[in-house]
Amino acid sequence: MKKFLAEFIGTFWLVFGGCGSAVFAAAFPELGIGFLGVSLAFGLTVLTMAYAIGHISGCHLNPAVTIGLWVGRRFPLKEVVPYIISQLLGAILGATLIYIIASGHGNFEMGSFAANGYGAHSPGGYDLTAALVAEIVLTFGFVLIILGATHEKAPKVMSGLVIGLALTLIHLISIPITNTSVNPARSTSQALFVGDWALSQLWLFWVAPIAGAVLAGAVCRFLAAEKTKK
Amino acid sequence: MKKFLAEFIGTFWLVFGGCGSAVFAAAFPELGIGFLGVSLAFGLTVLTMAYAIGHISGCHLNPAVTIGLWVGRRFPLKEVVPYIISQLLGAILGATLIYIIASGHGNFEMGSFAANGYGAHSPGGYDLTAALVAEIVLTFGFVLIILGATHEKAPKVMSGLVIGLALTLIHLISIPITNTSVNPARSTSQALFVGDWALSQLWLFWVAPIAGAVLAGAVCRFLAAEKTKK
Amino acid sequence: MKKFLAEFIGTFWLVFGGCGSAVFAAAFPELGIGFLGVSLAFGLTVLTMAYAIGHISGCHLNPAVTIGLWVGRRFPLKEVVPYIISQLLGAILGATLIYIIASGHGNFEMGSFAANGYGAHSPGGYDLTAALVAEIVLTFGFVLIILGATHEKAPKVMSGLVIGLALTLIHLISIPITNTSVNPARSTSQALFVGDWALSQLWLFWVAPIAGAVLAGAVCRFLAAEKTKK
Amino acid sequence: MKKFLAEFIGTFWLVFGGCGSAVFAAAFPELGIGFLGVSLAFGLTVLTMAYAIGHISGCHLNPAVTIGLWVGRRFPLKEVVPYIISQLLGAILGATLIYIIASGHGNFEMGSFAANGYGAHSPGGYDLTAALVAEIVLTFGFVLIILGATHEKAPKVMSGLVIGLALTLIHLISIPITNTSVNPARSTSQALFVGDWALSQLWLFWVAPIAGAVLAGAVCRFLAAEKTKK
Repeated sequence: MKKFLAEFIGTFWLVFGGCGSAVFAAAFPELGIGFLGVSLAFGLTVLTMAYAIGHISGCHLNPAVTIGLWVGRRFPLKEVVPYIISQLLGAILGATLIYIIASGHGNFEMGSFAANGYGAHSPGGYDLTAALVAEIVLTFGFVLIILGATHEKAPKVMSGLVIGLALTLIHLISIPITNTSVNPARSTSQALFVGDWALSQLWLFWVAPIAGAVLAGAVCRFLAAEKTKK
Repeated sequence: MKKFLAEFIGTFWLVFGGCGSAVFAAAFPELGIGFLGVSLAFGLTVLTMAYAIGHISGCHLNPAVTIGLWVGRRFPLKEVVPYIISQLLGAILGATLIYIIASGHGNFEMGSFAANGYGAHSPGGYDLTAALVAEIVLTFGFVLIILGATHEKAPKVMSGLVIGLALTLIHLISIPITNTSVNPARSTSQALFVGDWALSQLWLFWVAPIAGAVLAGAVCRFLAAEKTKK
Repeated sequence: MKKFLAEFIGTFWLVFGGCGSAVFAAAFPELGIGFLGVSLAFGLTVLTMAYAIGHISGCHLNPAVTIGLWVGRRFPLKEVVPYIISQLLGAILGATLIYIIASGHGNFEMGSFAANGYGAHSPGGYDLTAALVAEIVLTFGFVLIILGATHEKAPKVMSGLVIGLALTLIHLISIPITNTSVNPARSTSQALFVGDWALSQLWLFWVAPIAGAVLAGAVCRFLAAEKTKK
Repeated sequence: MKKFLAEFIGTFWLVFGGCGSAVFAAAFPELGIGFLGVSLAFGLTVLTMAYAIGHISGCHLNPAVTIGLWVGRRFPLKEVVPYIISQLLGAILGATLIYIIASGHGNFEMGSFAANGYGAHSPGGYDLTAALVAEIVLTFGFVLIILGATHEKAPKVMSGLVIGLALTLIHLISIPITNTSVNPARSTSQALFVGDWALSQLWLFWVAPIAGAVLAGAVCRFLAAEKTKK
């Protein structure tokens, strides 16, 4: 139970902090934090929770990460589904609180909230193929870094910092492409509020991140297998 | 005595650095640091002092943190009041020095200084409810991270970095909402100089941060209790 | 084989992340990440991979670094060429994926991609001499920091973070001068796509970084020799 | 000899990186790094060199720091002068290389280079008193953090990171006030190239940083003395 509560709170924090900074602060006139600030905010949600709850649940906060860790043989199958459910519920609570606060602003319009999209709904107008490639490659990199930085030969004390900053890096590259997902729970939470196009494009933000994560898990197993042979 | 002097100096540094960067550098024409730079500055005041004075006083620098640590059974009741007084005095000294420097600028106008506010005095025009929710949720997250990152199972060496960056994250999200408090001492120091509306709205920046901190302390005790049962 | 695969993936990540952030996100209207965001992205590619694959290959990701480490007697001669080939192939894959994603943008024009240049092709219009001096001095500093931060007397756990942030610093200084290389593999990957002037200026981005790296290796050997005498 | 060479190289890097980012990249049209990027660059010069040469010379890179450490009884008197001379020579080399590169730019005008100033030469128009107060208070904080973060009770592995980020924080606050010195060697190197007003205002950037550093050293001795009594 404690693990699931930790994933719930952590994913809440990821969505509230990451998507919240995008909704409240990114485009503030003159002083706004822009994509750079949002990238930093997403990374810091993971960095901070990694040290706060990492010793409880491992701090996945992301269904693709949970699946990638399972493929890489670092996480038991039986906990995959309860982890993903906890993450989804936390993400939805995060989106709900963003909605409540945003509604307290006189001129609030839903707009695209912080939903992910491609084609007409890509911030920079990137098409479906670009979105697919970007989300697969970036989640591949993300999960590879997670598996590498938590490897027994890497300095354990740094792993949370490295993984958080990896998420910052990923956002620095790809907010213009898809508004950056690499996390199906984060995407779902925003799509539920936006509805419409966001829900009909949501499949990509489950398929591509999970594909990238599975690929990373497989590469790491290959590398580990080769090591054992030697 | 040493502890109180450390809290005094540390909270001075938090207000002078965080609010100072907002007053002097945020809106500098073309080259200004914006909300992103101010967010970084607030976080770095705590990060730097955590390693400079953390071994003396624990580096709270914030009445809500002191109260949250007490609720979470990490801090003795008898030191709560002297810590808060030291923090308030340090914060006021910080605000005083900002005022002295700012007065050395030909075109200085007090304006809102770096005071916290809601409604008409929220930087982005967010109402009372939005301000309350944001301050409670963010202080809850802040104190949860503090309690988690200083837990015996978390790597001690990183806690100051994590806690400082948590404050950066919190500012990235919420400067547009309330100018970000999560710290009654910081709010009080600015309100004393601005007077008027800042003083009459000050209650929220004591009530909400303390409520969030108490909630975080209670959640952590619950988690710790459950762990013990196992 | 594992080492070469690690260098291949790592250099792919460096180019995809660093140059990708420049192509996709730097100049996004109003919210773009600018040179500051690109500087951070380059540094974070190295920081993240240092902890993910550092224990496999040492995470050079850069022919100049490999050569500098060899001159500094930290790397065997026989692996220099296979490392450089792995880095070049990874860099080219990174550039290819950036090209594929960028092509999915309706208004895509190749422009200068993220190629390095001087004179008419320097972002800020700096001439050949300025470019040479900057690339030599900055690669000298980079390799000196790498050799120092991985020295047995430096804290091993921090080296990846320090080296990544050194690359961020180098970009903060020199994007306007040459678009910042200090890495012949990164430069080659971009020049292959831009062709023309980028290929004819490419020599500088092999000669200058390698010269700086050799100088750093030599200085470190001198320092080490003097230490031994004592 | 090795120590002095390390201080020479390190202070060269501080001026070349910090002032160089200001001269080359701060005000680049649309994509420039602004005061935030310059603040980050200054901090990263110290952070990177702390791990590269910290085990050789302690990585002061600043006459005020050297004097503050001596007052705080952490550094022997007989090495104060040779350290300061090494720092000055390194800083002047850094300024010279910035000048050479900047001259390779068609439209180069000396302007204020990256010199420190007050009154008419303060970036934001702050007067002499404001400049004095800011430089004293900020150097006080800087040296206090250095003494605290290198204290035996603080985690040694983090001290370079903390001290570097302290310099970033200091710049975030005070570039508009004096262009930020807290370092007489850095100020001298720029003033020598600008001449004129920069030389006649240079006294302040020796007096104020040293005053702040002496104060910090004295406070730390007081704290240490009280500890011993207990």
